[in-house]
Amino acid sequence: MKKRNRYEIAFTGAGGQGMILAGLVMADAVAIVENRYAVQSAMYGPEARLGSSRSDVIISDSEIGYPKATRPDLLLVMNQDSCTKYTKLLKENGLLICDTTYVSYIPGEKDIKNLYKIPFSRIARSEFGTPLVANIMALGFISAKTGIVKKESLAEAIKRRVKEKFVNLNLKALERGYELGKEM
Amino acid sequence: MKKRNRYEIAFTGAGGQGMILAGLVMADAVAIVENRYAVQSAMYGPEARLGSSRSDVIISDSEIGYPKATRPDLLLVMNQDSCTKYTKLLKENGLLICDTTYVSYIPGEKDIKNLYKIPFSRIARSEFGTPLVANIMALGFISAKTGIVKKESLAEAIKRRVKEKFVNLNLKALERGYELGKEM
Repeated sequence: MKKRNRYEIAFTGAGGQGMILAGLVMADAVAIVENRYAVQSAMYGPEARLGSSRSDVIISDSEIGYPKATRPDLLLVMNQDSCTKYTKLLKENGLLICDTTYVSYIPGEKDIKNLYKIPFSRIARSEFGTPLVANIMALGFISAKTGIVKKESLAEAIKRRVKEKFVNLNLKALERGYELGKEM
Repeated sequence: MKKRNRYEIAFTGAGGQGMILAGLVMADAVAIVENRYAVQSAMYGPEARLGSSRSDVIISDSEIGYPKATRPDLLLVMNQDSCTKYTKLLKENGLLICDTTYVSYIPGEKDIKNLYKIPFSRIARSEFGTPLVANIMALGFISAKTGIVKKESLAEAIKRRVKEKFVNLNLKALERGYELGKEM
């Protein structure tokens, strides 16, 4: 498990892509399961139902002051709008993970050193019959790539946060995302 | 519905008293159902499982900058620790709602003009067989007292956020809290 004094994550996408759930699961995994500090926040606009959605998680080994990711160490973008809007915030040498199902253009792509382009939503639809678990698949990928949170902790958090009837599906998606992260 | 440029709420209590859920339900109700701006944030420490828990919601009619409640207009305290720690943050003329089941002493009580002391957890245990819906009862009370969010919007948000098997129980608790607010 990588230890950092302050690790900023922003999950961004369209409303309905589960960015808020991704943030809650990540924060629960880090804080409740792994006993570290986390702050989770979510911004909702009047367009929350259909428009863009952003959820931040700050992870630290000590108490956290400012609760928003101003320069994310890790940015997940799940649609074109959020990619266009938030990619510029990425910290130098930060990690950009892009769901290419709904993103065709990444601003400043050639200058981004740590970039993974994976069609999470397309894979989720083809393997699980729904794109709605792409968020959890991305969490598995993040666990494999960064070690910032353990896969097992994410699984525990999923059991707490996800509606009972969808828990198994989400655990499979987590596993698949983790595999993808280990393969790439 | 009262309109304010920035209305800050802090839900504070022990881990397990549902402060994070209260914040999520409030933010969903305001933003997704009522189409206004909201920011929800939750702080987790290593003590999250058993220790104190705090969840903030900022409501606005325009985009929100700083996501944390620095001087809450409304503070809910559900246990002694959070009461002792957070009461001093309350904005002048702010509203303090105190669950007296687990709070026996309010610092500076005589100077707080807008104070309601209600044993939500005791009432919830006696009327619904569990103290765990005290958080939602408090939301109903807040709706009745402040008008900052409609009861119907909270009910919609509960249907989205609460596990299916507990939805009806929580809707009853919401209604009971609202009644209490109208009576007092």
